[in-house]
Amino acid sequence: MQERLVEISSLVAVSIENATRAFNESDVTLAETVIADDVKIDTAAKELDELAINILARQQPVARDLRIVVSALRISASLERMGDMAEHIAQLARYRFPDKVVPKSLRGTFSELGALDVAIAKKLVDLLTNEDVRLAEEIRNDDDKIDALHLSVFDKVLGETWKGGAIDTVDATLASRYHERFADHAVSIAKKVQYLATGDWVAASA
Amino acid sequence: MQERLVEISSLVAVSIENATRAFNESDVTLAETVIADDVKIDTAAKELDELAINILARQQPVARDLRIVVSALRISASLERMGDMAEHIAQLARYRFPDKVVPKSLRGTFSELGALDVAIAKKLVDLLTNEDVRLAEEIRNDDDKIDALHLSVFDKVLGETWKGGAIDTVDATLASRYHERFADHAVSIAKKVQYLATGDWVAASA
Repeated sequence: MQERLVEISSLVAVSIENATRAFNESDVTLAETVIADDVKIDTAAKELDELAINILARQQPVARDLRIVVSALRISASLERMGDMAEHIAQLARYRFPDKVVPKSLRGTFSELGALDVAIAKKLVDLLTNEDVRLAEEIRNDDDKIDALHLSVFDKVLGETWKGGAIDTVDATLASRYHERFADHAVSIAKKVQYLATGDWVAASA
Repeated sequence: MQERLVEISSLVAVSIENATRAFNESDVTLAETVIADDVKIDTAAKELDELAINILARQQPVARDLRIVVSALRISASLERMGDMAEHIAQLARYRFPDKVVPKSLRGTFSELGALDVAIAKKLVDLLTNEDVRLAEEIRNDDDKIDALHLSVFDKVLGETWKGGAIDTVDATLASRYHERFADHAVSIAKKVQYLATGDWVAASA
């Protein structure tokens, strides 16, 4: 099951890297790749769920093993949603092509948001591979930075110097929310892995 | 477990009814009630998860029973997110108080969105109580109406007659998304109940 989670998280890491690049550089081909690849993530998550249910039925795990299987079901659901967020970011890039999604004054912020989401996704692959709980802490810190950037998007959009039209405001609002939700799901997964590693099995499966 | 799901869905139905009323009528006291009540929904969902894990450990269910327990875990997660969406809608009402969240031109649309979310939540309570699969179909139809209204919000915001400022645009975008996500989660639950009732156990636990 761990191998499968690592595989799915690797697919998610590739998708968010492609999605944020498509978003920042208006690369419509790359955006379409992300949209097409989301099916692979969905399928891989469903396969992992079936594996987990088979393990529950055949091996009837208890105690820590049971918590691990239930946590894996939850982690798979979060990874699937992270894939959806990458897809949503790519869809915004595709809708606005050949224009860029956000006006110049916000591009630096979205470039930082994208880089942090990509960093978080890569750390998540590592965390699921080797359960190094320091990575869970790093993911939480990166998420704090993302929350601050997310708020700064609203400060800019609602500030006096904002010259964007309604379409820019809508896109910036949605794009910022997708970037932020992507990181939220990563934090939720990181907490579960941390709890499992530290023996807090109840919290891990919550 | 079914009783618990019915209880949680009833809490969600009360919260979305209060949240949409708070949103449409700028009732800050009601908004604060919704925000405070979200903790109850979160706690009830966690308790159901613990019950499900205890059942898995002690009774080691297989086949249909196992699928029901796994589906219950997923339904509980969706109900918890529906509670979050009600809370987000209430938070928008609180932030903008004493103003209304959306300008006049959108109030009719949001009143319809809110009424549909409330209707869906009540049907979900009924569906979880008596597994009448016709309700699952109705929920899907209501969701189609919500998707159309959600798109119409963007049509208005991006149309030539839109006089709202950036803050109105941001609020309308987020509020519409929260209403739409609330219904999406309900559809996802309705599908699971329908699959369980019709014997498609694999789909039910996916």
